[in-house]
Amino acid sequence: VKVGAVSLNHRDKMVIDSGRGLTLDFPFTPGTDLAGRIVAMGDDAERFAVGDRVISCFTPEWIDGARAGTARTPAYRTLGGYFAGVLAEYVVLPEDWLVTAPAALDDARASTLPCAALTAWFALVERGGVRAGDTVLIRGTGGVALFGLQFAKLHGARVLVSCSPEKIDRVLALGADHAMDRHRTGWLEALYALTDDRGADHILETVGGTFLGQSVQAAAIGGRIYQIGALDGFDLSSPAMPLMMKDVTIQGIGTGHRRALEDLVRAVARTGMTPVIDSRFAFADLSDALDRLDAGPFGKIVIDTCDITLPPT
Amino acid sequence: VKVGAVSLNHRDKMVIDSGRGLTLDFPFTPGTDLAGRIVAMGDDAERFAVGDRVISCFTPEWIDGARAGTARTPAYRTLGGYFAGVLAEYVVLPEDWLVTAPAALDDARASTLPCAALTAWFALVERGGVRAGDTVLIRGTGGVALFGLQFAKLHGARVLVSCSPEKIDRVLALGADHAMDRHRTGWLEALYALTDDRGADHILETVGGTFLGQSVQAAAIGGRIYQIGALDGFDLSSPAMPLMMKDVTIQGIGTGHRRALEDLVRAVARTGMTPVIDSRFAFADLSDALDRLDAGPFGKIVIDTCDITLPPT
Amino acid sequence: VKVGAVSLNHRDKMVIDSGRGLTLDFPFTPGTDLAGRIVAMGDDAERFAVGDRVISCFTPEWIDGARAGTARTPAYRTLGGYFAGVLAEYVVLPEDWLVTAPAALDDARASTLPCAALTAWFALVERGGVRAGDTVLIRGTGGVALFGLQFAKLHGARVLVSCSPEKIDRVLALGADHAMDRHRTGWLEALYALTDDRGADHILETVGGTFLGQSVQAAAIGGRIYQIGALDGFDLSSPAMPLMMKDVTIQGIGTGHRRALEDLVRAVARTGMTPVIDSRFAFADLSDALDRLDAGPFGKIVIDTCDITLPPT
Amino acid sequence: VKVGAVSLNHRDKMVIDSGRGLTLDFPFTPGTDLAGRIVAMGDDAERFAVGDRVISCFTPEWIDGARAGTARTPAYRTLGGYFAGVLAEYVVLPEDWLVTAPAALDDARASTLPCAALTAWFALVERGGVRAGDTVLIRGTGGVALFGLQFAKLHGARVLVSCSPEKIDRVLALGADHAMDRHRTGWLEALYALTDDRGADHILETVGGTFLGQSVQAAAIGGRIYQIGALDGFDLSSPAMPLMMKDVTIQGIGTGHRRALEDLVRAVARTGMTPVIDSRFAFADLSDALDRLDAGPFGKIVIDTCDITLPPT
Repeated sequence: VKVGAVSLNHRDKMVIDSGRGLTLDFPFTPGTDLAGRIVAMGDDAERFAVGDRVISCFTPEWIDGARAGTARTPAYRTLGGYFAGVLAEYVVLPEDWLVTAPAALDDARASTLPCAALTAWFALVERGGVRAGDTVLIRGTGGVALFGLQFAKLHGARVLVSCSPEKIDRVLALGADHAMDRHRTGWLEALYALTDDRGADHILETVGGTFLGQSVQAAAIGGRIYQIGALDGFDLSSPAMPLMMKDVTIQGIGTGHRRALEDLVRAVARTGMTPVIDSRFAFADLSDALDRLDAGPFGKIVIDTCDITLPPT
Repeated sequence: VKVGAVSLNHRDKMVIDSGRGLTLDFPFTPGTDLAGRIVAMGDDAERFAVGDRVISCFTPEWIDGARAGTARTPAYRTLGGYFAGVLAEYVVLPEDWLVTAPAALDDARASTLPCAALTAWFALVERGGVRAGDTVLIRGTGGVALFGLQFAKLHGARVLVSCSPEKIDRVLALGADHAMDRHRTGWLEALYALTDDRGADHILETVGGTFLGQSVQAAAIGGRIYQIGALDGFDLSSPAMPLMMKDVTIQGIGTGHRRALEDLVRAVARTGMTPVIDSRFAFADLSDALDRLDAGPFGKIVIDTCDITLPPT
Repeated sequence: VKVGAVSLNHRDKMVIDSGRGLTLDFPFTPGTDLAGRIVAMGDDAERFAVGDRVISCFTPEWIDGARAGTARTPAYRTLGGYFAGVLAEYVVLPEDWLVTAPAALDDARASTLPCAALTAWFALVERGGVRAGDTVLIRGTGGVALFGLQFAKLHGARVLVSCSPEKIDRVLALGADHAMDRHRTGWLEALYALTDDRGADHILETVGGTFLGQSVQAAAIGGRIYQIGALDGFDLSSPAMPLMMKDVTIQGIGTGHRRALEDLVRAVARTGMTPVIDSRFAFADLSDALDRLDAGPFGKIVIDTCDITLPPT
Repeated sequence: VKVGAVSLNHRDKMVIDSGRGLTLDFPFTPGTDLAGRIVAMGDDAERFAVGDRVISCFTPEWIDGARAGTARTPAYRTLGGYFAGVLAEYVVLPEDWLVTAPAALDDARASTLPCAALTAWFALVERGGVRAGDTVLIRGTGGVALFGLQFAKLHGARVLVSCSPEKIDRVLALGADHAMDRHRTGWLEALYALTDDRGADHILETVGGTFLGQSVQAAAIGGRIYQIGALDGFDLSSPAMPLMMKDVTIQGIGTGHRRALEDLVRAVARTGMTPVIDSRFAFADLSDALDRLDAGPFGKIVIDTCDITLPPT
């Protein structure tokens, strides 16, 4: 695969900075989310043809159904970690690890789908079955958050976003029904008021930590919380009573499988949804791109791995 | 309804001791779980006939589907709390609040079903869909725990119980496949070893608090944890990573609806399952019965509210 | 309830023409779907206030979860049949049989929701979980069909409609992605071609009879067919092999429950969806309205039961 | 794999007699269901070790989740058809096409699992979620039917069997709660009577044709019918109204995926369930074995492919 673009995730920065506890072989190539074009194929390959535009699978062995691993040792066999990464001009991958890219998206936009978009889709759509009229609470404006906003709106849901005050205008422009300043006290009361005390049917918990307890307070009867991120640390806490009295479910999410990525690509293709890119960097400016990750981007950060990004066909 | 027997729950003790935060009208009658016989009916009643043996519904307005309440104020309208209780010789109840008792169980045994049995059934069967070959982890030997053990075995599952060492023999006699001393370190390793590292597919979390985090460690890929009890306090905590990497679900459980109680009664009736009673007390010895609740009973505690418990028909 | 508008269904015509096998008490009032305003309430009523705008429930005792009835005798206790109907200026109903009307819809539009809209919603959303990128096949342009089209689009799905050629333009204007002339042979090939052989993920089978077999041919792997109508007779037929080899589900649908109607109202309210009305008739012209039902209307037929339809609040 | 035993299905006879519409390369080896022992492995194989006892997967590429194929051309890539079969002393298979055999079953018994047992499990457990207290209706005493009986009983369900009168005793001995003579009129009334008019919650429709309509009559509110067999021809028919009024689902079943076969093996291993073998034949007597298939066996027919069936380890 000739790589056209690679989008970055916080995880990439952790791997580059510290290895993130993984056993890495050096020289090591980071990066998990590519979009590019197939330039050569093995003799047995039959899923694609030379010239096809493709994106990668973040957890490439997880095709459908249950994921691999055990209670003791969850499988965390991803690209750019257990497997070699994709921040390169050319990569060689088994054909099962690739999915056809949406024709209408250029490589930069298509490269945003394998991790952040799939995570939001897997939570809200595959696990949660979000539907028209539901209320969805989103925290922040990172990659998963903005895809969650867009996927919820695709399904006719009402979206409330809790974010920094300077981003409220952009969140509303992207289709959110309401945006709340996350620094203000009283956002829970505001959410109750906006929903006539019903609460949120779906919550993308991209922060975690003690915020999980707030999410349980915010959840509707029968509400679903998707535990996705750990920006507030790796220890979750929550009051027990509202979880039990409100029939609330907390669902752990760690990206998703290839079949869901194919479903997502079909949804993007048919609805014309456009991923939000915060900024693009040349390959040589990777270091700046990683710094930008820490600054709280609005959407995804993309590395252009070749001079000319292929235009949409 | 002429009450034949009333089984006790920890909640009854909390209500009697402190009111449990509820607004109670005095004189107040505690108690939620009755078995008895209909002795008179209103003119419009049509679900039962005089002479029918019945049990009560713990959350009587919750018939099927979603429960009532809001995000701000979960509905906790139960007998022996929001509504008057059933620790009485005769009670008057709307017919919708009653379910036919299993014919093969006497009143003492039938009275154990409305809260503890329904909670275990709602978690493992209604929400969890436990099935043959699954591994179920149970904590302790209280009412919910032992019903969980019995319902899991009814469905062909394998049951591991973590309990006090002096109760291991009785747990095994009741059908558990393995029992582990809960005071010993290394029970998690023991569970991994017993399951070839697969872990537990279903966990009845009747303790909560920091034990929830242990349950997340013990859960299989795709495993389900039912958060039911708060014996370790009302604040839950858990590590985030295994929840996310193992696709684990935490489901809050607060008893269940009438339709599930009817399903449960049918299952008990057809399989001949017998609830476990720890001890029975005369009405006059209620105080001793409440003390017994604190001592860690093995199964349910029942108050015989009339001299002669009705035999099975 | 002061009735503002009543929408008609084919069933109303059958009941008026022949009784439809029901035991009716005369004088009998037909009609099931009302929108109106509460003008007086019983002392115990608490779900609404005088002045609230409401719609009726078609199967009013079905609140949530499983429906009533037995294998031998399905419950068919609907308004305008087992219960008295609503084609009247004023009706008295238990408060449990009503749902708040969407504020943005006038009575004529709101009256279309209780049967046709709920049936389409219950199939596609409650039972089927339609989602963005799915392909939905709709037959015809009756009330259920057009609501199916609209609800599918609300959720980001792609909609193919098979209808009379003179209605193709209106169907496309309503948002359908493709419309096919139902009289032409080769529509199945056309559907295969439009979907790259994937087929339809959801099919609203509003015709039945031998058309069910066509739907099975058209269904995708894992596809869902909702058997709703019997315009081609009360005997269904289908080939067995594609049903089995494609993991297809046929789901019988007979309207839905009140909780789903409440969800639907919330979705309509939040998305601004507008029901399609074919034509409106004065109360005195009921006979013309029933004739119009047979002529193949495009959307719903509504009777204005009072001179002045209440404006949206 | 050194093959120890191969169990036969009706499909094998159809393939041998007529090719069943498949394009076969000659010399062709029939047979799909083997149990045997791994005697050699490729260098890259890692799922098993030499000496492991294994069984085959009927539709070997279907690992989990959705099956392959399109609306136009369902995938029917099975062993002993699209792929070469297993009626041989030794076969070479990709390791992904095998599952560990239950240790407690000899090869003859283990060989019965890949098609018949998996089909019954996939219907009742994977798709249907059968549970204690449910009523299950089984037709006949073939391989799928008897596994259905056994799996239903494993989950605490009540089982009614409709079969030839001379087999009633054996069906009851195997655990059925009731057996009905399928030739007698009035079996539907009998079923209503046995279930207090509730009907059957799950129906294994192994006959099809016009029997599907009877199954719809027999189904409970919300009941599930699994369309599995076509002994009464490849055209299904049913009345529409009870399907719609009773919220009944008809689910097409064509065996199942490998993950479900692994679940099934775990259930068999933990519960000690023993498959029912009608008769065993030496490899040289294959012709007699195929004749026996037509005679209406009670359970599975097995070919011993080597002199000595390996004992359980």
